Amino acid sequence: GMNPDLASERQTASFSVEKLTARLDGGAEHTRTRRAVVEAIECDPVFSRENQYFQSQNERYEAAVRKAVHLQKKMHEMGWTEDGPEFKYIYRALSGDIAFLLHRIFMRSISVLGSKQQIAKWIPLATQYQLIGSYAQTELGHGTYLQGLETTAVFDITTQEFILNTPKISAMKWWPGDMGRSATHTVVFAQLYVHGKCYGVHPFIVQIRSLQDHSLCPGVTAGDIGPKMNFEHVDNGYLMLQNVRVPRENMLNKFCEVQPDGTYARWGSQKINYFTMTTVRISLISDEAVIPLMKACTIAIRYSVVRRQSKLKPGEQEAKILDYQTQQEKLLPQLAAAYAFHFINNYLQELFDKVYREIQRKKFDTLPELHAFSSGFKAMVTQYCTSAVAICLQACGGHGYSLLSGLPSLYTKIVASCIYEGENTILLLQTARFLIKCFMAASTGQPVPPSVTYLAAVKPGKCPAKNKLDFLSPDVYTEAYQHMAARLISSTAAKLQDLIQSGVKKTDAWNQCTVQLVQAAKAHCHYITVKNFAETVEKLETKAGIQKIMKHLCDLFALHGIFSNGGVFLHDGYISGAQMDMVTASYLDLLAVIRKDAVPLVDAFDFTDKSLNSALGSYDGQVYQRLYEWAQKSPTNKQMSPAYERYLKPLLHNTLSKL
Amino acid sequence: GMNPDLASERQTASFSVEKLTARLDGGAEHTRTRRAVVEAIECDPVFSRENQYFQSQNERYEAAVRKAVHLQKKMHEMGWTEDGPEFKYIYRALSGDIAFLLHRIFMRSISVLGSKQQIAKWIPLATQYQLIGSYAQTELGHGTYLQGLETTAVFDITTQEFILNTPKISAMKWWPGDMGRSATHTVVFAQLYVHGKCYGVHPFIVQIRSLQDHSLCPGVTAGDIGPKMNFEHVDNGYLMLQNVRVPRENMLNKFCEVQPDGTYARWGSQKINYFTMTTVRISLISDEAVIPLMKACTIAIRYSVVRRQSKLKPGEQEAKILDYQTQQEKLLPQLAAAYAFHFINNYLQELFDKVYREIQRKKFDTLPELHAFSSGFKAMVTQYCTSAVAICLQACGGHGYSLLSGLPSLYTKIVASCIYEGENTILLLQTARFLIKCFMAASTGQPVPPSVTYLAAVKPGKCPAKNKLDFLSPDVYTEAYQHMAARLISSTAAKLQDLIQSGVKKTDAWNQCTVQLVQAAKAHCHYITVKNFAETVEKLETKAGIQKIMKHLCDLFALHGIFSNGGVFLHDGYISGAQMDMVTASYLDLLAVIRKDAVPLVDAFDFTDKSLNSALGSYDGQVYQRLYEWAQKSPTNKQMSPAYERYLKPLLHNTLSKL
Repeated sequence: GMNPDLASERQTASFSVEKLTARLDGGAEHTRTRRAVVEAIECDPVFSRENQYFQSQNERYEAAVRKAVHLQKKMHEMGWTEDGPEFKYIYRALSGDIAFLLHRIFMRSISVLGSKQQIAKWIPLATQYQLIGSYAQTELGHGTYLQGLETTAVFDITTQEFILNTPKISAMKWWPGDMGRSATHTVVFAQLYVHGKCYGVHPFIVQIRSLQDHSLCPGVTAGDIGPKMNFEHVDNGYLMLQNVRVPRENMLNKFCEVQPDGTYARWGSQKINYFTMTTVRISLISDEAVIPLMKACTIAIRYSVVRRQSKLKPGEQEAKILDYQTQQEKLLPQLAAAYAFHFINNYLQELFDKVYREIQRKKFDTLPELHAFSSGFKAMVTQYCTSAVAICLQACGGHGYSLLSGLPSLYTKIVASCIYEGENTILLLQTARFLIKCFMAASTGQPVPPSVTYLAAVKPGKCPAKNKLDFLSPDVYTEAYQHMAARLISSTAAKLQDLIQSGVKKTDAWNQCTVQLVQAAKAHCHYITVKNFAETVEKLETKAGIQKIMKHLCDLFALHGIFSNGGVFLHDGYISGAQMDMVTASYLDLLAVIRKDAVPLVDAFDFTDKSLNSALGSYDGQVYQRLYEWAQKSPTNKQMSPAYERYLKPLLHNTLSKL
Repeated sequence: GMNPDLASERQTASFSVEKLTARLDGGAEHTRTRRAVVEAIECDPVFSRENQYFQSQNERYEAAVRKAVHLQKKMHEMGWTEDGPEFKYIYRALSGDIAFLLHRIFMRSISVLGSKQQIAKWIPLATQYQLIGSYAQTELGHGTYLQGLETTAVFDITTQEFILNTPKISAMKWWPGDMGRSATHTVVFAQLYVHGKCYGVHPFIVQIRSLQDHSLCPGVTAGDIGPKMNFEHVDNGYLMLQNVRVPRENMLNKFCEVQPDGTYARWGSQKINYFTMTTVRISLISDEAVIPLMKACTIAIRYSVVRRQSKLKPGEQEAKILDYQTQQEKLLPQLAAAYAFHFINNYLQELFDKVYREIQRKKFDTLPELHAFSSGFKAMVTQYCTSAVAICLQACGGHGYSLLSGLPSLYTKIVASCIYEGENTILLLQTARFLIKCFMAASTGQPVPPSVTYLAAVKPGKCPAKNKLDFLSPDVYTEAYQHMAARLISSTAAKLQDLIQSGVKKTDAWNQCTVQLVQAAKAHCHYITVKNFAETVEKLETKAGIQKIMKHLCDLFALHGIFSNGGVFLHDGYISGAQMDMVTASYLDLLAVIRKDAVPLVDAFDFTDKSLNSALGSYDGQVYQRLYEWAQKSPTNKQMSPAYERYLKPLLHNTLSKL
């Protein structure tokens, strides 16, 4: 049965949920394809996540391998291909618990960095899973700073081989997925030495496990790095190499080569590598940050209209917790952010497609902009979504803390997205470097990309809003964000210049400005997100109530940002204290407006119950029944604990006579 | 061996670590006692936490029961008593992984709510663990709002018994610790009915499991609620009662009683119950929030001087990550907060002792203040520490994400402290209610407690600081916090009045102000924390460098708060934009100053390696060796996964011919 409180929320939707879903998918035909994929995956018991919250690390790994192997078969059966329209929905349908994602990176690195011969040799084997690959870059002591890697590959001219070594413990490969237990091969990044001269980091294909019995190859030490906050289904591994020899042909040599006589040759542009990294960062924004946030919002908002607590008015029934202003203020801004980030992801995809078309015409001018923005948005969105998921979790009180709510595992997984594929602070500093460069160029009248031309026009000013309704004008708030971002970038650039002019070394000056540079980069991304949301709303169909509700969410996202970061808007008087009170008033008013549509707005994300895997968040709102049913399946209820016989019984044995 | 990078950090300490430790403990004799307790616990293998990160929920529960039972023996052996000086260090030494904490609440509730006869009957049995108790208040559908509980207890005059029932699923007891698997008895809170009339919620002692064989008693359904984000060592349980009868004597009847003829009698003051709750909230601030934050800071800061990444200057060695301003800005404010909250905890303890003395003299006037403040500080400190631990975790990059760092389990545990013993938002609203009341009283010249007299003197004004050094004056920043808190409280009170005067119902008006009320309550607690920190520094010994470094930390805590919450200080122009730049400059300068003493400042917390249980945070800084050693012990490395035989081998079997 359907929980009546939840049902009643759906009767009063101000817009068509189905039409909004189609809009989010980019058209109704995409919605149909997505649903067909989800249906096919979810009806197949091999892909079930039913007992996931009860599984050990070993069990989750086994399930992930089983699913990965089965997926090949399934794709064949269903006629899904990597180029087909279904492919992009598979990962979402599986909810990520699958092995061999690093195997895919292994293949991609060979495709991008390997010669035609190398591709012809390795890719068919990998495609058929006749070997299992991994990608071994990160070391125990070295992450983002690739030049610091310590693994060595020395060319032995007599045998025409490279000899790979892990010279010290900090040089062990550490973290590569699929490497701890599965991989037979891996691409190892190592410092190349020829005739005693170091040529920097290069990639080598290395076999690490026997194809016969999966035992470790001679000279190889490898294993699993143990338990993590999540990703228990992935066998992140360690790898130590002692005089492991690979033939000369195993260095990936599309761009450079060690010739038989030891001559080192290099050719072609490496800019494209840059581009690969960018691809990954953009693709993870949706899969690893926005979708998890959408799930968390769905769970928390549905629960908040089922859960009742205390009374708003004496004599009435206990109130739905979503009717409390404080609960709305926790959840509705996160809902607005999920939409904002969905649209910024579309924006980045479009930017990406444009750059990609230009690259194919050998034009690389727009690559720095794409790189800077994908870095900044990856950092901003993952950080924001991580905090947002934590808020959703805490907003569900005790039940949110149970794994059965689905929220803890969303949190423990999303938090990793702030670290992998570039630690967020480092990424934001890359964005900042680009912005400072553009600011300098713009100040001296040089051309800059359209997205940053606003930096040329930094000037003092005042927000023109006269009353709280003026703050519901996208022009007013977008202008405020633009002003604020430009001010932070220009003032940090000025500080940097001042330090350098006062004799501080450039590198020290940069370090002394990094806290502010990070702030400036975030401000830029926040501004673009607001601007893009407003522009998206502008273009939406006015029918079916979609544009109206999206306009409310856009306003909420923007005003929430001003309300929560008041300091940077008030700092130079662009917004006055009195105007900030107007912002606050409009912001709080919007909460009550959006609250009415909160459930339809999460329904539009269109997650199935299986995909949410949450006792709190199911479509029917049968929260308490489901918590009870699921709890009964816990392994802690399967048998009496040995602790009773061992520790409790001896204590309790002589109580009876006293009671 | 000692990591040389970490060793060098200790050679340049500007103060005596040992003296600071003694100051934190409240005297060198306390430090000695604490160390003796820690030593005795840690040298006992029964209390080992060595494999904790590899354990399943079942294993953690068993270990917790084993430790709880062994602790009784240990205390006897060591001559430690509940009144002795050692007692308060035991929980810290065990690092919380112990069973039967709810058994203690069971005992406390009987001591406070039970008659002399009830105490005489139950307390000796419980003390000897001849029964195991729990405390069943929360229900599946009901938390903080006690009046909403649905469990019923109907008096049957013919048998002189109460008949307890769980009328529907939302009425199941849910969450009580020690109840899922261990408890034989529990105190059940239920709506009392006599002759069809409801008398509200009352406590009843109910036996739920056989003392003979631990099977569930007739009419009782109970079990474990399953996996959680942490607290896997606790068997949080569910309980359903169907016509379970207990004798009339089992209703705890110090304050009220159902007499044999069904007459309901009530006497005495119940204010003291209020006080019990307050005790728990205060005690958890240190154990569950401040100590975990201190541990997280210790781990993250030690790791940040061992970890090197990228170069600050070309040609140099890679830099310690703590030498980056952004890393300092992540960690050092959290370190300052740990000290600030340690001192606010002392402040609350003193307030508590004062109120307790008055209560013994039957004076209850100061109870509302204590209640309001313990609620507010519980909320503020747990929320702040939770965010701070998350920052420490993320600041350690990938390795922080490994369970072996110790940081994930600190996070997943501390996040629960925001929810239990009163959900934070509800607690802050209680504080706000008190503050608004005091503000109203103060405005009309009525007397208010000394801690809130500042509310009487709300007036516009300007911060007198002329340059960045002025912001290192505690008077200047304390005044700024005071002004800001008073402004937020008075403006919210004004909004509330306006709404009510414009005809909005009182309860609706309150709900429409709750976002701002929460903000005001936090502001008050933040102000008191800064003020108390400054006053504590004032009183510190000037010798041994203690006062100087604590002054720096106090400045940092205060300026970080202004920097991060700029909006509320700039709002009415109390601080100008130009002054905010001074705050920022002083704040960033302080980071570089405190950075020099960062390691000695965490060393002073005096955690043993066993207590940190972290591969990243050990005293010797042998981070990489320890990660490798510990990873090898992971169950994922114990044997080849069955996934190989089942899924991988069939794929790989015909590869050999092709390679």
